Formats: sequence, C-alpha cells, structure tokens
Amino acid sequence: MSTERPIIRLRPGRARLVRYGFPWVYADELVLDRRTKNIPKGAIATLQDDKREPIGTVTVNTDSKIAVRLLDRDPAAVIDQPWMEKRLRQALTLREALFDAPFYRLVHAEADGMPGVIIDRFGDALVVQPNACWADVMWDVLERALVRVTGASVIVKNMSGRARVLEGLPEGLEVTTGAISAPVPVPMNGATYMADLIGGQKTGLFFDQRPNHAFAAGLAKGGDVLDVFSHVGGFGLAALAQGATSALAVDGSAAALELAQAGAEAAGVLDRFDTRKGDAFEVMAQLTKERAQFDVVICDPPAFAPNKGVLDKGLRAYERVARMASALVNPGGYLVLCSCSHAADIAKFREVSLRGVSRAGRDAQLIYTGFAGPDHPVHPMLAESAYLKSIAVRLA
Amino acid sequence: MSTERPIIRLRPGRARLVRYGFPWVYADELVLDRRTKNIPKGAIATLQDDKREPIGTVTVNTDSKIAVRLLDRDPAAVIDQPWMEKRLRQALTLREALFDAPFYRLVHAEADGMPGVIIDRFGDALVVQPNACWADVMWDVLERALVRVTGASVIVKNMSGRARVLEGLPEGLEVTTGAISAPVPVPMNGATYMADLIGGQKTGLFFDQRPNHAFAAGLAKGGDVLDVFSHVGGFGLAALAQGATSALAVDGSAAALELAQAGAEAAGVLDRFDTRKGDAFEVMAQLTKERAQFDVVICDPPAFAPNKGVLDKGLRAYERVARMASALVNPGGYLVLCSCSHAADIAKFREVSLRGVSRAGRDAQLIYTGFAGPDHPVHPMLAESAYLKSIAVRLA
Repeated sequence: MSTERPIIRLRPGRARLVRYGFPWVYADELVLDRRTKNIPKGAIATLQDDKREPIGTVTVNTDSKIAVRLLDRDPAAVIDQPWMEKRLRQALTLREALFDAPFYRLVHAEADGMPGVIIDRFGDALVVQPNACWADVMWDVLERALVRVTGASVIVKNMSGRARVLEGLPEGLEVTTGAISAPVPVPMNGATYMADLIGGQKTGLFFDQRPNHAFAAGLAKGGDVLDVFSHVGGFGLAALAQGATSALAVDGSAAALELAQAGAEAAGVLDRFDTRKGDAFEVMAQLTKERAQFDVVICDPPAFAPNKGVLDKGLRAYERVARMASALVNPGGYLVLCSCSHAADIAKFREVSLRGVSRAGRDAQLIYTGFAGPDHPVHPMLAESAYLKSIAVRLA
Repeated sequence: MSTERPIIRLRPGRARLVRYGFPWVYADELVLDRRTKNIPKGAIATLQDDKREPIGTVTVNTDSKIAVRLLDRDPAAVIDQPWMEKRLRQALTLREALFDAPFYRLVHAEADGMPGVIIDRFGDALVVQPNACWADVMWDVLERALVRVTGASVIVKNMSGRARVLEGLPEGLEVTTGAISAPVPVPMNGATYMADLIGGQKTGLFFDQRPNHAFAAGLAKGGDVLDVFSHVGGFGLAALAQGATSALAVDGSAAALELAQAGAEAAGVLDRFDTRKGDAFEVMAQLTKERAQFDVVICDPPAFAPNKGVLDKGLRAYERVARMASALVNPGGYLVLCSCSHAADIAKFREVSLRGVSRAGRDAQLIYTGFAGPDHPVHPMLAESAYLKSIAVRLA
C-alpha cells in the first residue's frame, strides 16, 4: 500500500454507502481540514472511515460538488497504467461481446470503473471526454493504456461540455495521438453516419440511441418518416436502411444536416432523403400548415430538463413536442419521443408525452419503452441517473 | 343511436377521466339504483355523465370492482360483428407491421380497444382469454369476427386465470372452433418452442418476453446458460439458437420441461440442452454446492408480488433470487432477472435485484432494462399497469 499518498477521511456514519459501492463522496461528508484542502485537484488518495480504517482508493477534487470519486474498493490499489489497462480490457470485453464492429461507447464513466471518463470508439479513433480531474492529471498514462488495449491510432481529447465546468476544468479540444481531418463513416443498424470527431458536441455521434433507432426503423418500412431534431440523421437514416420510402430530417444545425446528407450519400439513400434547417417547433408548425402527414414521426430533442431547477419547464416542452408532432402522424402511424434529460424520469416523461398526444385529440397505444444501449451501462448505485428514455406510440 | 339499451350514469365530477380516455369506471363512481343493479352482467350500455349527457358506449358488470369498461368513445356505437372486425383488423395491422410470422399476442385487452380480452395467435390457432363478461356474452360474435379477420381454423376459449375470478366468471377451457390435439411448434427469435394450447396457463407460451429473450440470447454466444424458472424453455432455447454452448433449464413442472425438450429436439439443439426438475431455490442451492458456474444465468420467476398486499414479501423473494443466482455467474458473466408482478414497478424491482447482487458480494453493471414486446401494447391511461420487467447485469 502506498503510504506516501494523501489520506482523506469521512465524517462519522458516512462510510456505509461507500462500503456498499456508492462511488461518490460529497464535500460535506468529509473531514475538510487545511491539509485536505491542499490536496492537489485530481490527486489519488486513500479514503478512510472516521475510525481511520482505509476503505478505498479515490481521486479528490475539492473544487467539485463530488469531492471524492471511488477508483478502487481496494485501499491499496495502485492507479497506474496496468490498472487502467485492466479496466479498459474489462470494458472492451463487454463491447466485443455485444457488437460486431468497433463502433461503440467503450467506457461509460463510473459504470465501467473509470469515474468521469467517457470514451467513444470510432474504429481506430477514440474520442475521450475526461470529465473528472484525475483523467486530466493522468492523461498521458490513460493515453498509453488506451493505445495498448485498443490499438487506436487517433485519440481526441474532447474537453467541451457542462460536466467539466462543474468540475472547474478548462474547455477545449485536442488531437493528442495521430491526426484526423475528415468525418468518419460509422456503421450502425445498417445505416452509415458521418461523425465529425473534431467538431465538438454538435457534430459527433451519439451511440446511445442504437436500440431505439433499431426499434423505430423497424416500424418505418414502406413509410414516410419525419425525423425532428435529427442531428446527423440518427433515426432517419436508420429508417431508410430498413426500407422507409422517404425520410425528412429537421435540425437547427446546418453542419449536422450536411453530415446527415453525407451519411445518406454514403449509404446510397440520398434520393429518398431530404432535410429542412430550422427551429423544430417552427418547422413542425409549418408542416402542419402544409397538411403534411407521415407514417413515422420521431422527436429526439436536446435535454429540456437537464436539472431539477428546470424540470417543470422542461416537462412542458416535452408535452408541447408530443402535441405538435401528433398532428403530423397518419392514422395508424407511429410517434417516437425521446428525452435525454437527467431530471425527467421515465414515469414523468411518459406522462407528459402521453398527455401531449391526448391534447392533440389522438388515441394512442404505448408499444415501446427503451433506454440507452448496453454500451452505456449504469452503475447500480446510480441507477436513477440513467438519462436517455424513448417511447413509441401508435396513433389511431 | 340505440335507445333500447340500458343507460348507466356517473356521479357528479366523475366524467372527466372517461372523457380523457380512461377506460374503467369503478362501482362507487356510478349512480347505482335498482334498475342499474338489474342490468345483466356483460350487457352493452350507454354511459352518461351526471347531466345525462351520453359520453360513451360501455359494458357493465356490477359484480366486478371494474363495474364499467369503455368499449367506444362514441355513445352511439353499435357493438356488433363489424365493430369487432374493425378492432381486430387494427390490432392485426400492428402485429403484421412488427413480425414476419403469425405468432404473437393479437389483442391485448384495453390497449387494443377490446376490454378484458386477450388473444394469442399461434399460426392458424387462436387462444382467447375472455376475461371480461361481455366477451363471454358475445362469444359467438367474437368468434365469427376472428375467423373472418384472421382465417383461424382453431379457436380455444381459455377461461382459466385469476382475472375471471375477479369478474365472477366461471373457469374452464373449451375448443370452440376446429380441433387441436398436439402441441404447436412456435418460431421465435430463431428458436422453436412447443406450446400446448389446451394445457392451460402452465404449458402455453408467453410471447411477452420476446425482446428480452433476444437480448439475453445475444449475450450467450459460446457460453453456458442456466435458465431458472424456465417454463417451456423460453430463454434457454433462444440462447442455444444464438450459439450458446449449453443450456440447463430448471422448472418445477415436468410438463413444461417435456415441452422444452421437444422444442430443443425440433430445433436440433437437444445435444446441448439439459433440464432439472425441482424447486428453483433448492436447485440453485444445489448447483452452488456443486460449484457450478455459468456465463449467463436467467431467472424468470412467477409473479411474487401480484398485488400490493404481498408487495414486501414479493420484493424479498426477488432479492433472494438475485442473491442466489449471482453465486452461479462466472466473473464477467451476465445475470438476467425478470418480474411479471403488477405491484412491483421497475424502480422497486431494480432496487431489490441490485441489492441481492450486492449482498452476494458481486460488483455489477446494469446493461439492459426491458419490458414486454410491442405486441403487448399498453393503454396510455393504464401505463402504470405494465407488468413485465427485465434487467440484465454484468457481474465482475
């Protein structure tokens, strides 16, 4: 056991949850003396209970609300390249069991035993989001471990996003191994997506919708599809791959729609694919005015309720999406609604969505409830935190 | 509008939910005078609000807690063979869009606009559960409509099960169209199941697990599988079809295990399939004593918490299942846990299951949450009632 590294101690009665495997300790659960406050951000430390019994190996960031993150239940664990390689190999084994091609979320933070670290794999290229400070501090070790375990030739360090702000970390984007210039073609559900790995959040690719894309695409065969908040064409291109007659993608981002077009071209379905750039609500209102009708309508909006403070407002927005989209669905057609809001659980999201459908005067059958795909595992003590939900209804 | 049929009236303030589409009225929401109490069980009636405004066409059974079930939001609807055919065709259209072969739940009660009526399709054979009185009363009409819409040559009237007891209806089983003697081979997820359509609940087939079978089977390739509470082999045979090395099915019913064997034989996987008859808890304890280990363990027990009165006891049983099954999973293997308890919602079921895993000393990743397949649609006002839940975890 490393005796040189810092020690951080829990207040009385706070060790129980950690012993059960809860991976976080909040600042107010710690004995925060001057010595503790001086532990450098991102340092590795030994966590003790109030009786000075060591209970785990942790990383410390007293600038974050989550002051301590559990790295290993073994208080003697050494957090070095072999440790990282072992965690990465465990993560890789799961994805290789799940998928035929190397396009997936390789590491999903706490649930894969790498707190705050998100890694998406696009063939030989990896996009890493080091959303906790220790991964910034140990970046070089992490990078070497990643190359060793996956053979990646390109590693992108993506430091954009809200999570780093909460950790008090700087933003930015760097290619730290290899080089990349063009968008990467990504096969998923029979479709091809173009992912711009250096364009930041707006133009990457979200693997989390894989099972929901698959379900919605299965409904679309021989039908006309409207994909609202389409991003790079996730639902629409999957539907075309499964035999949809046409797909119209609506998004506010010209860059995302260009990538969607490129994906449609790469998959040979450009003749059945169209786009409209604009505010989703305005485009839906316009389509209603045009009396447009579709066999499958999908709405996958940005997080309207990212936190509890905006939950009510967010839920009203989801209801509005459901109400407006219902008007665009043919009798007997399908409506697929998604939420990536942490604060809106499945029961609340379903309730407001179904209310929106009802207020549009449509009778409905709920035929599907889905979540993020299995390459986005959930930590058992953070099960409430699963963010992505998707429901599908059939409208009379 | 039929003026001859009975009229039944709501108490003040009770019409709102029905107008929103809620399909049930409880006895205490009705004006129950002598005339109303004399309405024959299963009769079709017109529902009025307290101002005598007609608001829907309903069926009445004052012996049931659910005294009134909404058949049609149109108070002038005539409930005859054409009405039934229309409902059945709408139900059929959904299933034909979803599945390549005619093996599915064709009608899922309220969600398909046929209150209390469950119809499973096995090719040319239909098994109907008329769990509300009106379907008993109108049986001949329903049967003619079914033959007309589906071309079925066999219709089984299955009057077993708890739901009919709650409605005050007699139990039993009758083949009312055609004849059937042998179990029917059912293709699902690449496997073959043998369904005994005249053996009652214990030896039929449950289509609801289709997506969960598929997910679990995808994890099983090249692995050894333990299928506890196997019934006719649902998870185990699907796993073998997807390339599992071996599957061991455990169930208390010799008849179910014989059908599982017959299914394995029909699919040509008998050499990789084995069974053990016995109490699931005892067999799991015995396997632990034998130091048996599996790559995938599935537990799909009967409803331990069918109603709120037994919820706590049921949750303890689910926790025990999770704890005992965890001991039988290889490091890096998978555990799939199911519940068909109405009273245990997904959050509660997940919580006790993950606690059981934790008490077995195993770290876990939650990789999947699933529900009944899309041929089991849910009525939007009864979304809380979805009974089937399935989770999959990977154990360290």
